[in-house]
Amino acid sequence: MATRAIRVGLIGFGTIGTGVIKLLQRQQRQIVQKLGARLEMARIADIDLKTDRGVKIDRRLLTNDAQALLDDPSIDIVIELMGGYEPARRFVLAAIANGKDVVTANKALLAVHGREIFTAAERAGVDLGFEASVGGGIPIIRVLRDGLAADHNRAVYGIVNGTSNYILSTMTNQGGEFGEVLRAAQQQGLAEANPTYDVDGIDAAHKLTLLIQLALGARVRLQDIPTAGIRDVSQLDINYAKDFGYVIKLLAVAKEDDGLEAWVQPAMVPRAHLLADVNGALNAIAVRGEALGASMYLGLGAGMMPTATAVVADLMEIARNRLHGSRARVAPLGYPLASQRPTRIKPLTELTSEFYLRFLVQDRPGVLARIAGILGEQHISIASVIQKGREIGATVPIVIRTHEAQADRLQRALRGIGRLAAVRAKPAAIRIEDSLGQ
Amino acid sequence: MATRAIRVGLIGFGTIGTGVIKLLQRQQRQIVQKLGARLEMARIADIDLKTDRGVKIDRRLLTNDAQALLDDPSIDIVIELMGGYEPARRFVLAAIANGKDVVTANKALLAVHGREIFTAAERAGVDLGFEASVGGGIPIIRVLRDGLAADHNRAVYGIVNGTSNYILSTMTNQGGEFGEVLRAAQQQGLAEANPTYDVDGIDAAHKLTLLIQLALGARVRLQDIPTAGIRDVSQLDINYAKDFGYVIKLLAVAKEDDGLEAWVQPAMVPRAHLLADVNGALNAIAVRGEALGASMYLGLGAGMMPTATAVVADLMEIARNRLHGSRARVAPLGYPLASQRPTRIKPLTELTSEFYLRFLVQDRPGVLARIAGILGEQHISIASVIQKGREIGATVPIVIRTHEAQADRLQRALRGIGRLAAVRAKPAAIRIEDSLGQ
Repeated sequence: MATRAIRVGLIGFGTIGTGVIKLLQRQQRQIVQKLGARLEMARIADIDLKTDRGVKIDRRLLTNDAQALLDDPSIDIVIELMGGYEPARRFVLAAIANGKDVVTANKALLAVHGREIFTAAERAGVDLGFEASVGGGIPIIRVLRDGLAADHNRAVYGIVNGTSNYILSTMTNQGGEFGEVLRAAQQQGLAEANPTYDVDGIDAAHKLTLLIQLALGARVRLQDIPTAGIRDVSQLDINYAKDFGYVIKLLAVAKEDDGLEAWVQPAMVPRAHLLADVNGALNAIAVRGEALGASMYLGLGAGMMPTATAVVADLMEIARNRLHGSRARVAPLGYPLASQRPTRIKPLTELTSEFYLRFLVQDRPGVLARIAGILGEQHISIASVIQKGREIGATVPIVIRTHEAQADRLQRALRGIGRLAAVRAKPAAIRIEDSLGQ
Repeated sequence: MATRAIRVGLIGFGTIGTGVIKLLQRQQRQIVQKLGARLEMARIADIDLKTDRGVKIDRRLLTNDAQALLDDPSIDIVIELMGGYEPARRFVLAAIANGKDVVTANKALLAVHGREIFTAAERAGVDLGFEASVGGGIPIIRVLRDGLAADHNRAVYGIVNGTSNYILSTMTNQGGEFGEVLRAAQQQGLAEANPTYDVDGIDAAHKLTLLIQLALGARVRLQDIPTAGIRDVSQLDINYAKDFGYVIKLLAVAKEDDGLEAWVQPAMVPRAHLLADVNGALNAIAVRGEALGASMYLGLGAGMMPTATAVVADLMEIARNRLHGSRARVAPLGYPLASQRPTRIKPLTELTSEFYLRFLVQDRPGVLARIAGILGEQHISIASVIQKGREIGATVPIVIRTHEAQADRLQRALRGIGRLAAVRAKPAAIRIEDSLGQ
């Protein structure tokens, strides 16, 4: 008897798409064993049909015409791996409208147009898999949707951008300033030519909107998440962090106590915390639930083959549903959209934290007093001060650790301090995260 | 319209069972939102119907008669939380024979009678959930069965017994010898009155047989897993480990290269490895796949509420299958038993490793030469020796790090060395695990 086939169409034959083809070929026998059916690549659409991707395919599968793929009634599942907002959005909606299940790795698309797409999928009764959109090959979407489904989660946080974690851990472990480490990473293909999404925290914020929906059942707007990247992190700050027993990481954090706090920012994490040891391109996502307490999920958050494992795991799950007549047995987020709570994210004015502050000042009497005065005006109290070396006239760092301070008052104070004649560079302010738990 | 109910019977109203009742009550609204149906506790069987578990239940649900529960045609899913081999085995098989789905936390049962139970479930077309049997609330079963289903896994390893990890990390971070730390843990309810399963590695070996089946698709026999516990780990060894940059952990390891290596033993883990930071009652399980590389999953591996989250997550998944008419859409292990490969575990004679050896000897000339001679006879070569202090006649430690050595030759050498007149205590030998990968 011929093995039944689930037919798959791929839009976007780039790095991840190539990985998916490789993995489907390599794991073919195992997949048939597990599913009792084949996953058959039926059509591959891309604007570039020429480049050799180093993978063997029947060239007749290739097409320039994504619409033809979307309209092909023999195709069961469409994989969208082109990235970006348009035409990815249009293609995904067209696939759903045509009754196809969809697998995508496109976090930007889901962060911005997620509600439209999730709604369309729910109404059409199709499956939408997006495991590859957060944490690469770490099955964090399934963990949140199914594994932790019985708990009331209160927080989700971690390191979700591999590029910026690679840059920060290289700066920490090998030295170098942001600019040079970024350039080296670009040369090694570990950072994009245009690194904005990664190093400015935008990619992390995209992922955080998805994690918040999955873990907390809350609906938020991307633009409400206070977001900062790692461009301003300097070697000087990394070294002070070390002296104080901390490591600087770009964190994405969401916690619900009295209201929802959610932000993407560099932060100082205690050296003893597990997140402090998450180095290189690794991602790590922690979840805190009322019943389970903290749990954590680590692995490679990007790369051809890691990401491909997530895409193919989605294909297998969706294929199972088709084979058992149980499509849409779990909603994409694990609950119907109607039960999602529109939730306000606390603005910067309501966020408080202890901060590490670093100023480069011309060393002359009275500077510290001026700085302390401005902080005091903004009700920011000082826990400790370090002023290393003394060399009248030279530029020296002043490092201050604050008590719990309000983020917007701090911004105001920093603006004021930045205007002092003795202050020679943009002040640095980094959150200190002593209360992450675990 | 009344919400549909999935009716659940519970056998074993102990700590975890109480947690399950609590969680079902606490999360009732969320569960209905997610499933579109209620999970209704229909019957609770236990031999003790008197004790107040501190949870509100309709006392009419309680029964002494597990068989009546198993024969109740209105019950859809049976939760087995009594533990032990019999009558748990009989009850689980009876539930399956009666067409009920089963959820269990009983790793001992599945490690020893798994094949019989998995076969029965597969033939009957019922679902069998056992998320709570490994890693407590960490959803590692789902991760392996679904999340990493597309990869070819080569290794699964980690810290899977919370009690022994608690004891070892207390010994490491606060001092104390095994016996006293165990007694303190027993007083705090963190170790059982009879701690054998936990501290002798048996519980970890139970879990490892399940992890091997899930991650590697291999069928193994529990009794073939070389297993050792932590009773012989001494403060002296923990301190030497620290000096060398290691932490001693009870590891459960399975790796497939040329054949399957699987064992449970205390081992020295490099301080920089993430597993070295897994302290207290935490569990951590790492998986290495060809495509994904290493990924790791951490959380509380035991306790009432953490374990209850796993049980209820299983209930929710199985309820979904009933609601969508897709029971048994995934086999318990993620693949049909027929495709499981009976696999030989390498016996001790084929295992090699670097070892830390520690001898307590009467300090007199020639002792080291005798020890080195016996090691040499067994083809064990020495990488370094530390002999601290010199005090002729006193008892002093000799610490040796070996190069890669065969475990059975080492056992023979240790027996020989143990017989030397100058050797004053049982020699200690601990694997050094430098090649775990992140």
